[in-house]
Amino acid sequence: MVQKKVTIIGSGNWGSAIARIVGQTTQQNPDVFDKTVRMWVFEEIVNGEKLSEVINTRHENVKYLPGKKLPENVVAVPDLLDSARNADVLIFVIPHQFVERTCAQLKGHLKQGAEVVSLIKGVSVGHGGGIHLISEIIRATLDVEVSVLMGANLAPEVANENFCEATIGTKDLEAGLALKTLFHTNYFRINVVKDAHTVELCGALKNIVACAAGFSDGLGYGDNTKAAIIRLGLMETIRFVEEFYPGSSFTTFFESCGIADLVTTCYGGRNRKICEAFARTGKSIEELEKELLNGQSAQGPPTAAELCASLKSRGVEHKFPLFVAVHKICTNQLPANKLIDQIRDHPEHHQKPHVF
Amino acid sequence: MVQKKVTIIGSGNWGSAIARIVGQTTQQNPDVFDKTVRMWVFEEIVNGEKLSEVINTRHENVKYLPGKKLPENVVAVPDLLDSARNADVLIFVIPHQFVERTCAQLKGHLKQGAEVVSLIKGVSVGHGGGIHLISEIIRATLDVEVSVLMGANLAPEVANENFCEATIGTKDLEAGLALKTLFHTNYFRINVVKDAHTVELCGALKNIVACAAGFSDGLGYGDNTKAAIIRLGLMETIRFVEEFYPGSSFTTFFESCGIADLVTTCYGGRNRKICEAFARTGKSIEELEKELLNGQSAQGPPTAAELCASLKSRGVEHKFPLFVAVHKICTNQLPANKLIDQIRDHPEHHQKPHVF
Repeated sequence: MVQKKVTIIGSGNWGSAIARIVGQTTQQNPDVFDKTVRMWVFEEIVNGEKLSEVINTRHENVKYLPGKKLPENVVAVPDLLDSARNADVLIFVIPHQFVERTCAQLKGHLKQGAEVVSLIKGVSVGHGGGIHLISEIIRATLDVEVSVLMGANLAPEVANENFCEATIGTKDLEAGLALKTLFHTNYFRINVVKDAHTVELCGALKNIVACAAGFSDGLGYGDNTKAAIIRLGLMETIRFVEEFYPGSSFTTFFESCGIADLVTTCYGGRNRKICEAFARTGKSIEELEKELLNGQSAQGPPTAAELCASLKSRGVEHKFPLFVAVHKICTNQLPANKLIDQIRDHPEHHQKPHVF
Repeated sequence: MVQKKVTIIGSGNWGSAIARIVGQTTQQNPDVFDKTVRMWVFEEIVNGEKLSEVINTRHENVKYLPGKKLPENVVAVPDLLDSARNADVLIFVIPHQFVERTCAQLKGHLKQGAEVVSLIKGVSVGHGGGIHLISEIIRATLDVEVSVLMGANLAPEVANENFCEATIGTKDLEAGLALKTLFHTNYFRINVVKDAHTVELCGALKNIVACAAGFSDGLGYGDNTKAAIIRLGLMETIRFVEEFYPGSSFTTFFESCGIADLVTTCYGGRNRKICEAFARTGKSIEELEKELLNGQSAQGPPTAAELCASLKSRGVEHKFPLFVAVHKICTNQLPANKLIDQIRDHPEHHQKPHVF
């Protein structure tokens, strides 16, 4: 059996946390994986040293995951094409706005039969044409099989080896179970499901629900209302998947990528935080991102905008009142305190009996 | 069409909040319901006045829901049998420890064909023989149809008319939809499902999950771990229903009684609070109930004990490691910091592929 070569495309906080896991699992499964894990590092100078050299000598990503050792079989490679050459499995873990550029550079340079696992949460936004999954962009550009890994996984806690779960979504279950070997450890527990689209959409749409939860918090509506918002947001997520990606299994929503990640995001998470402040202060989203997130962006508002473009083009906005309300509130077409009136008579309240 | 007479058995915080709703819906549906709603009030003297008289003259339950007007068609009745006589629909909303006594008193005094809606969360505990649903006790004693109403419904927020949702579980869908008319308002939104057992079990078992979430909080395990615990707790709830009440629909877990109530309980809620303190301080549950709940009891620990008796008698403890761990920790058979080791290799992580 030929050992698969694994490359991690990305070396930020989440990429480095995953490198700790993948460095370990490849060592533990020498029959399946080549021991050397290459990690593409976007080169930068940290305290006068090249980051890739620091990683390769001191085995620590001192900039993005300080204080945590990387396994010595994880090798930093500053050249993207060098890192990806001959790789059988490429783990994509870069910010979503760099996906198109990175794929364009890799195009034509991957090994025949290479597969990608995307850990990138979110969807492609800003084109105005509706929702495009990151996996779809990767697949379309590189012509490879793309699986995804999502879950309630804050990177610092994963790096700390706190117990958690994640979900691999894959078109081919056998391939997914092989990938499980690459990520499953005694503290990072993996389930595999077949509908990759659902897994990925959960990761993106939860941010819209978290905006609604944030408005509710900012308006002081209490626990009951917030619970109803989270539930209705989950139901709209399920309906969206049904409408746009029919054939998905809704048992996937019970996985870590589904309810677990949704709940965590609606109680913690930057989208909730920004939208709570938005409802309380009346400042703009952009202003609050500068104030509260050091200029980092919250993905909920742009995702809501793209999603609404998708809904509009299909004429189904009326089925998704929560998603539409979030978009309208974020873009000042609706005051935040009108949120509840938009979902008071929700389609989910009309089902008699409840049918999936 | 004969108008149905409605009686509320109970007048505490939740009973009074529900009386506000039922007083309104009966007035709005004069074809279906008799306008007068009787409410059994366990008589007590409040500031020198009888509570029932205060309610009937000032239309306010000054002791259990001060500051909120009750509709004038809600009439307090201090005698239990008087309140229940000729009632077509009896809404049970008393503390669970009073159910057996109250049913014994009512036995033989209900109208032929009367039906009960139980709003009582929890199960009958303390007998050591395993889980007994409150609805089963009511049905067995009074020989009536029993539906249940559960959801993420903190009483003060419902009384404040904050938007929320609830679930009616009923054996007979037509009967359930008729009941919906009695509870559904523009701020209290009802869905009806057919598996009453599931609805009721969600209301009881969430308290065990909340104990585990509390331990996790007390041990400082972070958001990922808590999310995994909530998810695994939900999965054990689903498996428990499958094992002990086969034929249930697991779409019910997506209702307010399911994930919404679970999440709210695992983030707020007294079981979470007590168990967080338990893990942090090492004090006993009883001590902490006195300190933190003014002597009120947390239902998670005794529910876990009864549930484990049920599991043991069927020889399926190994399928429910989270529930068993909570019971062992609460009874000092296991230190709280061993929780994760009990669920690290959970049956849910073995499913390939994931099958429901």
